[in-house]
Amino acid sequence: MTQPKYFGGVEGGGTKFVCMVASGPDEIVDEVRFPTTTPQETLDRTIAFFEPYVRQDQLASIALASFGPVDLHPESPTYGFITTTPKPGWANVDTIGRMRQLFGIPVAFEMDVNAAAFGEYTWVPANHACDPLVYFTIGTGIGAGLMVNGQLVHGLVHPEAGHVRLAHDWQADPFAGYCPYHQDCFEGLASGPAMGARWGQPAETLPPDHPAWELEASYIAQAMANIICTLSPQRIILGGGVMQQPHLITLVQRKVQILLNNYIQSPAILEHIDETIVLPALGSHAGVLGAIALARRAV
Amino acid sequence: MTQPKYFGGVEGGGTKFVCMVASGPDEIVDEVRFPTTTPQETLDRTIAFFEPYVRQDQLASIALASFGPVDLHPESPTYGFITTTPKPGWANVDTIGRMRQLFGIPVAFEMDVNAAAFGEYTWVPANHACDPLVYFTIGTGIGAGLMVNGQLVHGLVHPEAGHVRLAHDWQADPFAGYCPYHQDCFEGLASGPAMGARWGQPAETLPPDHPAWELEASYIAQAMANIICTLSPQRIILGGGVMQQPHLITLVQRKVQILLNNYIQSPAILEHIDETIVLPALGSHAGVLGAIALARRAV
Repeated sequence: MTQPKYFGGVEGGGTKFVCMVASGPDEIVDEVRFPTTTPQETLDRTIAFFEPYVRQDQLASIALASFGPVDLHPESPTYGFITTTPKPGWANVDTIGRMRQLFGIPVAFEMDVNAAAFGEYTWVPANHACDPLVYFTIGTGIGAGLMVNGQLVHGLVHPEAGHVRLAHDWQADPFAGYCPYHQDCFEGLASGPAMGARWGQPAETLPPDHPAWELEASYIAQAMANIICTLSPQRIILGGGVMQQPHLITLVQRKVQILLNNYIQSPAILEHIDETIVLPALGSHAGVLGAIALARRAV
Repeated sequence: MTQPKYFGGVEGGGTKFVCMVASGPDEIVDEVRFPTTTPQETLDRTIAFFEPYVRQDQLASIALASFGPVDLHPESPTYGFITTTPKPGWANVDTIGRMRQLFGIPVAFEMDVNAAAFGEYTWVPANHACDPLVYFTIGTGIGAGLMVNGQLVHGLVHPEAGHVRLAHDWQADPFAGYCPYHQDCFEGLASGPAMGARWGQPAETLPPDHPAWELEASYIAQAMANIICTLSPQRIILGGGVMQQPHLITLVQRKVQILLNNYIQSPAILEHIDETIVLPALGSHAGVLGAIALARRAV
């Protein structure tokens, strides 16, 4: 009998699911993406993707990294559930129970952005010595995963760093904000849909010289300056759809330096901010490869 | 030969030094407080306080918890130094070198608010299961110490959570802010001196029904809501001189709930916020007893 060689990873997003069989980024055996529809259909497809690999004893374990909010407490009766999401049909959904029952291998569970942070930390050698490491996704929503003192942060629930309040200059930006809970929080001001609502066109269609990007960079920079003051991270990784605008990261780096105003006396901020605030080395695979890393750890 | 029974702790603040010999909060053998004058005189007095205990082999170790910014990297040539403080005479001062040389016992080093966080975590049984645990001091300055995943957070430099930017409603509060680096950051809006400058009288002389306290609670609550979103702490401890205003903590607790607007679905926020955001159980001894705990760990 051979030892299973591979791990299963799922990035379960609000828009799409990504499922992967791999040993790591250098050996990806299979990958599939499909839209997030009903929980039944979506989890059926997830199970169907892994089933042949499990049957052939090729998977040691699986990890599912889900959009949130989720229940991350292993001792809780709703561990592995999506909890209070406004996404229709997905509140109180058990994402891992059936896989556990059917497959008989360990099935780990995490929040999607935590998995992305863990993926970048695990698979990118340049990140191994970076602690704390913060992964932000700035896209349809805004969230952050945190590695601190060698482990992911869960705490009371899990970080929801997209919902911090920022200074909002109403004269420069009269847009009221888009968050149904907090109006002009970070996500309410700077998510993709917030940009779309403010400017009347989808963010990805705004040209590089549109004032939208300076404003967007200001809000992101403010949140990054705040996380630098709060947590003193050694690396901040900015992922998500909005960050695919190529000149945005440079704008953010410069504005963070201006906001901190030489207060944080570290060469990582003063001289090498382009190595401190970076795009994901794993690109759009950070989340699912993070799930692969979490599955590997769960064996 | 007997084993040394006690530990030495120093809380080195910008205004006063507190030195203690103890085994823990239940057995405090000796304690002295004196003003922070020149580094030479202040560190002489610190050494003189501990010298007889060291000579009689009663101290296993010492820890000094200093005001910052400090160098916390053990491999750095300036480990144990206060670095860029504006406090006259104290920039680039080695706080622990002479004690190490003279005493021949381990001398640990930390930032003052980190020591306070560690003290509350170590000595207060109700805090043992609280992770992350955040200790804020709100007084002459504002700062935070963080316990995350069982250890203090250092990172790039160390947290400087008093310098986060907050939403500042200029109509409600035209005060421009007091921070020489960031003007209206948290410390610039809500420290003791900021209150004094805004209202034209020392914070501690403002009566409980003065509007100053509602405004102060708003800023503190905003910073606490943000740290809850960022780090999902299981306990937040609010120390420092400003928090000695008895009704302030209750105002903060209520305003945090309003700001979060039921988004963080945890009973710790929704039902038991008075157990989640608390005053220091060790009172004004949190810092120096934290140093005692750090000394104990350094043996």
